[in-house]
Amino acid sequence: MAKGKTEKKAKVKKSSKLDASPKEIAARLEASAKEMVESIKKKQDPEFITKQRGKSNVNFDEDSGLIELGLKETTRNFLNIGHAKKFMQTTLVAEKTHDYLKQNKTASIREIYYELKHTIKDTKENTFDGQIESDSVIVDLEHSVDTIREKLNLHANPKGTLYGDITLVDVVHNKDTFNASKLGRGGWSIMSRIEPEEIKIKKIDADYILVIETAAMYERLVEEGFPKKHRAILVGTGGQAARGTRRLIHRLYAESKIPVYVFTDGDPYGWYIYSVIKQGSMALAAHSGLLSVPDAKYIGMTLDDVKTYGLENVTERMKEGDIKRAKEMMKYPWFQTKEWQAQLKKALTEKIRIEQQALANKSLDFVAKEYLPQKIKKKDFLP
Amino acid sequence: MAKGKTEKKAKVKKSSKLDASPKEIAARLEASAKEMVESIKKKQDPEFITKQRGKSNVNFDEDSGLIELGLKETTRNFLNIGHAKKFMQTTLVAEKTHDYLKQNKTASIREIYYELKHTIKDTKENTFDGQIESDSVIVDLEHSVDTIREKLNLHANPKGTLYGDITLVDVVHNKDTFNASKLGRGGWSIMSRIEPEEIKIKKIDADYILVIETAAMYERLVEEGFPKKHRAILVGTGGQAARGTRRLIHRLYAESKIPVYVFTDGDPYGWYIYSVIKQGSMALAAHSGLLSVPDAKYIGMTLDDVKTYGLENVTERMKEGDIKRAKEMMKYPWFQTKEWQAQLKKALTEKIRIEQQALANKSLDFVAKEYLPQKIKKKDFLP
Repeated sequence: MAKGKTEKKAKVKKSSKLDASPKEIAARLEASAKEMVESIKKKQDPEFITKQRGKSNVNFDEDSGLIELGLKETTRNFLNIGHAKKFMQTTLVAEKTHDYLKQNKTASIREIYYELKHTIKDTKENTFDGQIESDSVIVDLEHSVDTIREKLNLHANPKGTLYGDITLVDVVHNKDTFNASKLGRGGWSIMSRIEPEEIKIKKIDADYILVIETAAMYERLVEEGFPKKHRAILVGTGGQAARGTRRLIHRLYAESKIPVYVFTDGDPYGWYIYSVIKQGSMALAAHSGLLSVPDAKYIGMTLDDVKTYGLENVTERMKEGDIKRAKEMMKYPWFQTKEWQAQLKKALTEKIRIEQQALANKSLDFVAKEYLPQKIKKKDFLP
Repeated sequence: MAKGKTEKKAKVKKSSKLDASPKEIAARLEASAKEMVESIKKKQDPEFITKQRGKSNVNFDEDSGLIELGLKETTRNFLNIGHAKKFMQTTLVAEKTHDYLKQNKTASIREIYYELKHTIKDTKENTFDGQIESDSVIVDLEHSVDTIREKLNLHANPKGTLYGDITLVDVVHNKDTFNASKLGRGGWSIMSRIEPEEIKIKKIDADYILVIETAAMYERLVEEGFPKKHRAILVGTGGQAARGTRRLIHRLYAESKIPVYVFTDGDPYGWYIYSVIKQGSMALAAHSGLLSVPDAKYIGMTLDDVKTYGLENVTERMKEGDIKRAKEMMKYPWFQTKEWQAQLKKALTEKIRIEQQALANKSLDFVAKEYLPQKIKKKDFLP
């Protein structure tokens, strides 16, 4: 892993993905289609080039701090019987997303699956036999035209909430301008698409961004008046962060440069949520540069907190899944710091986990009045 | 079932639950505690009275259209070795919620569990050995002082989103006043607590409320400009509606009297989501009067839609869990209409389900331009 860094870094940093307009993306789709048509006219076998996925083409770049997709390509040929169906599916999705871009429409990945699914005339063959097939083709297409699905006007389900002194503008929705500290205690429901051409971050008045795993802890901190007192923006992920929420966190950091602290349950699942926000994931390795925040810091919960704050009585036993996950995480290149190795080892030795809400054992306001302010003051973070 | 209707109806309709102020609820808790103290002083066995739960004390009242808890009571005695631990737990939760009310604090049901969990001095006995124990005591207490947990300043996790021309005021948060059609396409993230003393519904300008199961369909309708064109308020539940979201739907209807239409996937799970919104659930039978909307109508998806709209190619096979659920639902008194019996029978015969998003098979805007407007125009609802 992590060979040929400069090459790969340049790849992530190049701005084509970020800056490409819907028009440009549409042009790339057209160019790819034209090539196929040319091949057919010349009685050649049309081909479609995308990137190899899977572990063998994923690298962790220590300089950028990102999980990245390598340069290995894969070619699909129409006249190869093993490729033909997928080839057909790819052209269907390419045509449909091209339509979306032209018509200024967006669709969920489930909708495009349903929209394209049909039985091919005079056969019993379906275009798609499950969403898994269209999802896979969408990833191929993202890599092929070097963009993210959001730029193909596709999106996954929304999840996540935003609270704090930040003013957003929804450019394509009456230019709605609203401040996420003035929507009562509920906050703003984060959309599945947070592309800059749609949602503008107009103003942030805050010292840091606090990303929170559980909805209940988000509500606790709002109730305690934490965001105002500590000039914090809160992002509630409600478990693993959705793509839209990751994109928003990425943009908040990229556009404001204020620090990002991540606050999850003290267990392998929580730490994994953190790592996805920080370094990205293997499944979306090609898009880490648009979705991740390598400078993010981990504020808690750690298993050391148990002793420090006397929480011995409110730990829980780790489940089998957590133990398995911890063992896998110990091997990931992006968990090779001594702090994280120690943390994972502790988890595997003591087999306990500690939830964010277990801090209520001290008192309800302990998290807002002592735990978080102390950690930030002492810079008591994990890397 | 459904015997002694008037008696039970009166119970649900009496306004004590709705109108009780935090002060009144606190007074009820105090009265209950004083009685215990008096008993102890008189060397009598202190007791705690709550309602019986479970099927044997749950009725469906056809007149009110609500699932209701009956009048059967249960008494717990401190000097009964089988009751003693639960008695202790009940007094702990009662004392703590009384504190919350006095201090104007709220807590999630997980937080109160953590806050109260400790090892009793000089013993190895924990006050609570899992959240299941404190959750159960919370329900006892709700019934005992005749209120909902939200009035004891407790709450579950928030989930759900609101969009449309409705103006809310968060009375206890700087009197924030905001219109849920002006927050971009994201909408407002519905809080876990929607009590009238905290959230006021200032103004609704709409012809109906459309409750939607999936977040993706909610986004589709927002993108199509459906709420503005059809003067609709959208409530996205994201699966089974959370308590806060049910409370909001109940209040929207109670305070505006505009119709509530529910739009879910066409499968037993979706229909069950509808029934919980309409008639309530057995688990929360005591609170149907505060959480449900007996006048709600079901707009779709139905299995008849498959033929009507030519969706044969985009149905899915029902899973085992759905089949089991359909069989159970056929027996529920609140599914004894001919329309629902026919629907459930069809599900069990054809063993297919149809998702909301499958309407994309016609075209992305089909749901907004044809499906929903036609159903509403023809009043093509299930009861």
